[in-house]
Amino acid sequence: MNHFFRRRSSICTSWLFNGATKETRRTSIRRSLCQSPEAWSWKSMDGMVSSPANYVPLSPVSFLERAAKVYGDRTSVVYGYAEFTWKQTHLRCVKLASALTRLGVSTGDVVSKSDWPNLIAILAPNIPAMQELHFAVPMAGAVICALNTRHNSSMISGAFDLIAKDELETPLLVLISDPNASASIPNDTHEYETLLAGGDAGYEARRPRTEWDPISVNYTSGTTSRPKGVVYNHRGAYLNALATLSAHGMSSMPVYIWTVPMFHCNGWCLIWGLAAVGGTNICLRRVSPREIFDTLAAKAVTNMGGAPTVLNMIMNSPDRRPLFCKVEIMTGGSPPPPSILERIEELGFRVSHLYGLTETYGPATSCLWRPEWDSLPSEEQYRIRARQGVEHYALEEVDVRDSVTMESVPADGATMGEIMLRGNTVMSGYLKDVKATEEAFAGGWFRSGDLGVKHDNGYIEVKDRLKDVVISGGENISTVEVETVLYRHPAILEAAVVGRPDDHWGQTPCAFVKLKEGFEVSRDEIIEFCRERLPHYMAPKTVIFEDIPKTSTGKIQKFILREKAKAMPPSSS
Amino acid sequence: MNHFFRRRSSICTSWLFNGATKETRRTSIRRSLCQSPEAWSWKSMDGMVSSPANYVPLSPVSFLERAAKVYGDRTSVVYGYAEFTWKQTHLRCVKLASALTRLGVSTGDVVSKSDWPNLIAILAPNIPAMQELHFAVPMAGAVICALNTRHNSSMISGAFDLIAKDELETPLLVLISDPNASASIPNDTHEYETLLAGGDAGYEARRPRTEWDPISVNYTSGTTSRPKGVVYNHRGAYLNALATLSAHGMSSMPVYIWTVPMFHCNGWCLIWGLAAVGGTNICLRRVSPREIFDTLAAKAVTNMGGAPTVLNMIMNSPDRRPLFCKVEIMTGGSPPPPSILERIEELGFRVSHLYGLTETYGPATSCLWRPEWDSLPSEEQYRIRARQGVEHYALEEVDVRDSVTMESVPADGATMGEIMLRGNTVMSGYLKDVKATEEAFAGGWFRSGDLGVKHDNGYIEVKDRLKDVVISGGENISTVEVETVLYRHPAILEAAVVGRPDDHWGQTPCAFVKLKEGFEVSRDEIIEFCRERLPHYMAPKTVIFEDIPKTSTGKIQKFILREKAKAMPPSSS
Repeated sequence: MNHFFRRRSSICTSWLFNGATKETRRTSIRRSLCQSPEAWSWKSMDGMVSSPANYVPLSPVSFLERAAKVYGDRTSVVYGYAEFTWKQTHLRCVKLASALTRLGVSTGDVVSKSDWPNLIAILAPNIPAMQELHFAVPMAGAVICALNTRHNSSMISGAFDLIAKDELETPLLVLISDPNASASIPNDTHEYETLLAGGDAGYEARRPRTEWDPISVNYTSGTTSRPKGVVYNHRGAYLNALATLSAHGMSSMPVYIWTVPMFHCNGWCLIWGLAAVGGTNICLRRVSPREIFDTLAAKAVTNMGGAPTVLNMIMNSPDRRPLFCKVEIMTGGSPPPPSILERIEELGFRVSHLYGLTETYGPATSCLWRPEWDSLPSEEQYRIRARQGVEHYALEEVDVRDSVTMESVPADGATMGEIMLRGNTVMSGYLKDVKATEEAFAGGWFRSGDLGVKHDNGYIEVKDRLKDVVISGGENISTVEVETVLYRHPAILEAAVVGRPDDHWGQTPCAFVKLKEGFEVSRDEIIEFCRERLPHYMAPKTVIFEDIPKTSTGKIQKFILREKAKAMPPSSS
Repeated sequence: MNHFFRRRSSICTSWLFNGATKETRRTSIRRSLCQSPEAWSWKSMDGMVSSPANYVPLSPVSFLERAAKVYGDRTSVVYGYAEFTWKQTHLRCVKLASALTRLGVSTGDVVSKSDWPNLIAILAPNIPAMQELHFAVPMAGAVICALNTRHNSSMISGAFDLIAKDELETPLLVLISDPNASASIPNDTHEYETLLAGGDAGYEARRPRTEWDPISVNYTSGTTSRPKGVVYNHRGAYLNALATLSAHGMSSMPVYIWTVPMFHCNGWCLIWGLAAVGGTNICLRRVSPREIFDTLAAKAVTNMGGAPTVLNMIMNSPDRRPLFCKVEIMTGGSPPPPSILERIEELGFRVSHLYGLTETYGPATSCLWRPEWDSLPSEEQYRIRARQGVEHYALEEVDVRDSVTMESVPADGATMGEIMLRGNTVMSGYLKDVKATEEAFAGGWFRSGDLGVKHDNGYIEVKDRLKDVVISGGENISTVEVETVLYRHPAILEAAVVGRPDDHWGQTPCAFVKLKEGFEVSRDEIIEFCRERLPHYMAPKTVIFEDIPKTSTGKIQKFILREKAKAMPPSSS
């Protein structure tokens, strides 16, 4: 069987990387500034020495090397009948990194020729190859860019354009085929297992020159018209992996089931984190309630992650059944509705709520539970559980502040402000977009674009997006993008999109539309028009024909439309 | 009552610091080399920015600031009737840091005048002030030096000489008096609570200029004639605190009882670590089995630490009683003898075994338990538990290597080599002793001076100190192995083996033995007991019945016993 091969178009089963980039004038600046303490000469100073004995740049690659030794015979990853130990995973990553280096992706030797390490773009579901590439790509001295498999090809080529720009020399394709299936490989394309098999087991993994070197690029799904590439560095990945483990109470040798996409903030940094604690990655061939419940029982799963929509799916399935052992679920993306929490915990799950953004390496805060809350009425408990909570230990600080004055809002649970974060687990910046980076960091904080309040115990709660993003099934939908498509329809005069509450998806896009005079078009025709030009989840599910309220200066008053959409009965898709 | 005041001589109840040091030629080197990434100008580079939003030097001070917010109303420290919450502890540390800054200890403003931050020496038992000073001193921009309270005054003045050298301007004394007692304060001396009360609650805590700035100096307990000052930096303290928590399975809000001295590797970095997870520090007024068992029950203790000698004391006490809830004990310093493990776990403790040195910020490895070992015969389990195990996730690597060739020994459980470690949790160096530092780091590893073997699963096992090993007829005899056999004898409470000069063999094993109360056993019976369980050459040829001298941290002072053995007439076998 070749599950993900059959389901995806050809671009979805391949990954590619760009060639070496041109030498630029900035190279010498980079090299002189990014030097590590190895270059410092402390020797003459009071006996303090910086040497390989007491300084190593922080990198999650260390976790894999330790796992191969400390957890060598324990299961690293399971996918159907395929299973590898940590020793095997490490060996496969070494060989893969070696093969990649032979193909010329490594910049380790050619640092002076490159302004930026090579990016390797990957399009794949949650499979062992995704786990391996998260280590092997950095071990080859390159940067991993896991793309969203739910994007359509125009969005993906947009991302590729951004990566490649004028620097792309010879794109190279590698096909990841399912081990149990035969697939025909095009002439100009490598096959993953064949490539890996040709690697050198004695290859010495590259380490970053400094821990601030980039390790990955993650594309935001675009609240603006253009996707932004969020750059993670080795140091932040290392620290956020540890903090996420801790926030989730994962200590030694957990068994983790993957329902969160691995392309999403590098699996909330847990692809790396699980190596630090010798955990087992369970990859599902199909994310269905039946497969989830079968796996929970068969593999003694201890932890999983999932957006509230996944919890909803599990809970409403006829395949649901009580658990033998408690399973901890991390949820995030949107606050878990009380009804979902209550019903899923009856089955034996325990849900913890995390909050973060692509720009914060995934999880940044968690609704840390206090034992004294156990005695509160359950309704009150669920209300608290929906809050975004407090920063984990690797983030320096989260606060709610006035976007203009930068003053902290009072901790009264009512005054709104922008949620801002700062610390080592905030991105290096947006790839090739200095302006956007500087805007995001203005005032010395990362501005999340989320509106929220601060409760008297310091716990934060998200109230709304600053921008008008619709969050559907954990995916951000830029209303501007949908509106742009609507405006392309010959019959449409004006369009505005807001979120409509939905029992399953959280929200679905709802379009308010005013037609041009003399034109007629049906609701279904408009939806179909959008589906041809957007991923299905971004297409409106509801279309309302009416005049659009505007301010005196002609700006559409979205808050009025949001109120209207909220007043509708929740859609049930 | 003024418990520690009455028990100690005047020097033991005071702490002091030296004044600003002279400007030296090396200052300019230091300043240019130790600059943090804030000074880097990444702005023009691909959108990557280094700013306060995404870079903060790693420091355990962050843990306290977060604890004040996240765990504000939870108990931070308990000592008799005194109790503070994390919010209170934070406020007290801020005021204390402010008061210290006013006294002129801070080097933050005068970096160009000082080759080294000011050291603040402290001599105190495990009391809230010790916890507070571990944060307040770095928050004032100075370096904490917690001295061993069990050292005699000549050793302490030796340490002071080393700290002070010719740089000491005006030593300043602060007396920490017990809150419930009145004590007369000499004219030229400050009183801790008075000093603290005068501090400014609005003081802005200083942060290290770089995370490689020193945070503490710890004196080795002096198994050699001269104590060495081991320098820790903020980065290493941060990382080792987290790794020790993880190795010990301490996740959220543990309750920790202090039997390990806080002056010992800064409490194995757990003074800092407990702030990261909002734990409660329980300080005992007296480390006795009765007080320990009373506290375990009264405070719902989850974790404690203690050298095997402490476990021995607990287990052999008439005050011992079974626990209601399991308590996790970290032990270290020397391998826990199986007989101790077995008996203490019957009471409801669970012992995990850690290994490290002052030079590795305390814990560096742990005997990570694998679930499949649960089914082994208990004797085999205890044999495994006494091993030093594998590196924690913040240490890059531990290995057993030939001291001369630097080659790894085979993982055969038999070939001896020197235990070597490398990573971010290895000290910056020995204070003002470049030569010793370079020797310790020769070959790119920290050389522990411990002899050990590597088992086939990679777990290391310490066999002896390099200088403790007995060489008899050309054979290396691990004194630890002989001691393990001695501890299995039902009459023996404590045992230590050293080499006795021998005309024929060079050395022969000489056992110092302390019997349990009410037991009697002859020299010959003990030798026979060993011969039944060891190769004859390893069995003691001499047995001396007497009390065993120990260091403040419970380590047996073998150099004293070696001197005794040397003073005996050479045996002639």
